[in-house]
Amino acid sequence: MPVYPNAEIEVTAFKWVPPFAQGFVKDMRVRWALEEIGQPYSERLIGGLFEEQPQEYLMDQPFGQVPVYKENGLSLFESGSILIHIGDKDERLLPRDAAGRGRAISWMFAALNSVEPTLSALMLVGHAGAEKDWANEAKDAVRPFAEKRLEMLSRALGDREWLEDRFTIGDLVMVDVLRTAPEDELVPVHPNLAAYVERGTSRPAFVAAMAAQLGVFERNEPVAA
Amino acid sequence: MPVYPNAEIEVTAFKWVPPFAQGFVKDMRVRWALEEIGQPYSERLIGGLFEEQPQEYLMDQPFGQVPVYKENGLSLFESGSILIHIGDKDERLLPRDAAGRGRAISWMFAALNSVEPTLSALMLVGHAGAEKDWANEAKDAVRPFAEKRLEMLSRALGDREWLEDRFTIGDLVMVDVLRTAPEDELVPVHPNLAAYVERGTSRPAFVAAMAAQLGVFERNEPVAA
Repeated sequence: MPVYPNAEIEVTAFKWVPPFAQGFVKDMRVRWALEEIGQPYSERLIGGLFEEQPQEYLMDQPFGQVPVYKENGLSLFESGSILIHIGDKDERLLPRDAAGRGRAISWMFAALNSVEPTLSALMLVGHAGAEKDWANEAKDAVRPFAEKRLEMLSRALGDREWLEDRFTIGDLVMVDVLRTAPEDELVPVHPNLAAYVERGTSRPAFVAAMAAQLGVFERNEPVAA
Repeated sequence: MPVYPNAEIEVTAFKWVPPFAQGFVKDMRVRWALEEIGQPYSERLIGGLFEEQPQEYLMDQPFGQVPVYKENGLSLFESGSILIHIGDKDERLLPRDAAGRGRAISWMFAALNSVEPTLSALMLVGHAGAEKDWANEAKDAVRPFAEKRLEMLSRALGDREWLEDRFTIGDLVMVDVLRTAPEDELVPVHPNLAAYVERGTSRPAFVAAMAAQLGVFERNEPVAA
């Protein structure tokens, strides 16, 4: 397991988050990528999900989120930005030929900008409307946008194993986006997408990354008063 | 103006969209970047916003959106993916040093993934809830997520001209995201953000890109029956 206190690469993560967020904090994507290539990294733990971060941290991450990635004077934020950097280190995550690299990066952006926002809008409406009598009607109105994107994604994937001819950071992010879909039925209505998520989350690197994130929360579980 | 029929670079755009979308279709970002560096490109026009695109087009753009960018066997989709490629061509859009490049790309992802989704959720709720009696209450519940991100962005920008020490693709996308905020008051409550948007959209390259997009729609205006 690549988590190693003296590693040159440092990734920030929350010390603890409530159970609903455990396993879903965005450092998962970066841990997963680093595990795929066996690249050691150290964790820097910061205060929780809803805490204001200190000004010093906001210099590195203007929205107080995780992860921040540091390596030899380089300081990156946003998991997509970090994944391109990690991909450029190792062909197993990002092809070296221009055409293959371009498609993989395009798929990563598609996951982040054409699929995830439709799912997170649905999640946000559900969250903001919790226990409000308009919530169901609003979710019904917003859901079709997510359904349409998933339908087109399912068509694009077809019966292939990965979005292109082999696993890339495009798949890594797409699988991570799909596994966090806010309603249980959204993905499984497309059996090829459900199998794709299963294939991604069965990879040893995903399993190791998940264990690393959950391990932090377990070790820092607040003691009940 | 870089639009030139025999250019090596080809960008797809819609032949025509309804007035509410004119000036806001995502090829704007790519046109703007190409104008910034004086890079010629040709337009390939495809059917409109709500039309099903042919299977051949879906091979290049799985969600039937624009733009697709082609150059010497390279085929890219998603404006973020295309902007990194264009940025790598010219230092005026993307610094060459690793630290500066990393910050610029991180800001671009922040615009796309930490700011835009909160604005587009608000837009989506407004659109999906048009003329529904729950729409205002739902927008009130979703709006604070957008307001919080804009507040933190305003703090990060401070009194600087650009997000880092000079204009990059990070600013290009951030300005483009902010100018499309779905409610007129969201950005102006932060005078530094309003001035930043004004600074970005006053650049000659932005003005030329806008003229190019609007020119296409004007030439292809449907004739009233």
